[in-house]
Amino acid sequence: MAKTKKKAKPVILVTNDDGISAPGIKNLVDAVKDLGKVVVVAPDKPQSGMGHAITIGHPLRLTTVQSFEGIEAYQCTGTPVDCVKLAVDKILHRKPDLCISGINHGANHSINVIYSGTMSAAVEASIESIPSIGFSLLDYSIDADFTAAKKYARILVQKMLEDPMDKHTILNVNFPAVSESLIKGIKICRQAYAKYIEDFVERNDPNNRKYFWLTGEFVNFDKGKDTDVWALENNYVSVVPVTFDLTHYELRTKLKKTWKW
Amino acid sequence: MAKTKKKAKPVILVTNDDGISAPGIKNLVDAVKDLGKVVVVAPDKPQSGMGHAITIGHPLRLTTVQSFEGIEAYQCTGTPVDCVKLAVDKILHRKPDLCISGINHGANHSINVIYSGTMSAAVEASIESIPSIGFSLLDYSIDADFTAAKKYARILVQKMLEDPMDKHTILNVNFPAVSESLIKGIKICRQAYAKYIEDFVERNDPNNRKYFWLTGEFVNFDKGKDTDVWALENNYVSVVPVTFDLTHYELRTKLKKTWKW
Repeated sequence: MAKTKKKAKPVILVTNDDGISAPGIKNLVDAVKDLGKVVVVAPDKPQSGMGHAITIGHPLRLTTVQSFEGIEAYQCTGTPVDCVKLAVDKILHRKPDLCISGINHGANHSINVIYSGTMSAAVEASIESIPSIGFSLLDYSIDADFTAAKKYARILVQKMLEDPMDKHTILNVNFPAVSESLIKGIKICRQAYAKYIEDFVERNDPNNRKYFWLTGEFVNFDKGKDTDVWALENNYVSVVPVTFDLTHYELRTKLKKTWKW
Repeated sequence: MAKTKKKAKPVILVTNDDGISAPGIKNLVDAVKDLGKVVVVAPDKPQSGMGHAITIGHPLRLTTVQSFEGIEAYQCTGTPVDCVKLAVDKILHRKPDLCISGINHGANHSINVIYSGTMSAAVEASIESIPSIGFSLLDYSIDADFTAAKKYARILVQKMLEDPMDKHTILNVNFPAVSESLIKGIKICRQAYAKYIEDFVERNDPNNRKYFWLTGEFVNFDKGKDTDVWALENNYVSVVPVTFDLTHYELRTKLKKTWKW
């Protein structure tokens, strides 16, 4: 209680999209568990690439798990966004002070923010007036080294708790896959225009029926030095403030002037 | 060929999230089929609320269907975003001149843009440098009247083909559920801050195990008269230009000034 003086401990909701058994979420809980009352509500299976999907057509289940020592934790049959909605409405019965998501195994910089279940959980929290951070490490492997990611995740969570920001704040944080000593610091960035060039693998199954499997090559079309991709390539932790207002204001102004009916 | 003079007919990719058998997509094809070469690639089942989900963990199937007289059409086992990716890479082998999605049965104004498979298909097209429009009618019913929606969808598609815009242009178009004579016109808007207040139904199944089912009440927190919700309440067709750059530029500027490490 000393850290927050006379105030109640802040409530920190933790989720992810790799599923509750992923090393990334365990590392995130470890990094912040003494900074507040941590409650984990995460998918019971991997949900990568689920974007902002919600479950409408069938019911959801919620089960308590003991995967995190001394931490209240639940696994949910739904998507990362379902987890945030259920946590607020049926577990916490209040808005947490902060929602954190990750640490994702793999990059969520540039256009990945749109496909990412990790970031969609953070965006959902923000829609519900809960400040949020999504964390991702540029290393897909199950035995990725989270040492530096944990250090910087903790710094950012402390910052958000000590210096409360607008309730709709969303930060998309990515960590380069390098050792702590090589990280140059934290950089506030914009989302790069970098995307996948799709190339579906086309094969026949054992019954000789054709199937397609998504693959693709990542290409950065954005030469700016103020982007998340640039920051990560140069060994910075990238922080992109994100909004859920998708209005293209510049184009709105143009269309209002030029489109006459 | 007369309509487009000596130029090749524009290629129009049509998709949706209600599935290939939904009346909305049939009405959209009917509305535009003489404006170019129309190709339909849509999910084989309803995909509402799928947001920007993509299918990573299993293969996709594509089957030709004859649901649209004289129109090349395919159903896909994936999400709306998968449909766009597959259409470009494996069916068209080129970028279409325009991608249109819908007509969705139900509103995709305000925050719905984020959950909507209809709009995510349009956003995906734009990421792939294909101008796009998502259309939605504020009527969920299977026998909804699409007369006015068809008329205005055609006007907007003609406009986009005749007056080509930036290749990343995305329009989120919603139609009020009123008869054509009551519609006052088209209004360029911004996305309203209006959202669902979640309230999961909590019940026990026949095996006495608890389940949760998403429901909620829609609340408009935005009193602006320049929003899509306001336009629709006042019987305008709402058009919100949308961007896939989620950077919160104002907050970025603030954090760059105030956050020191």
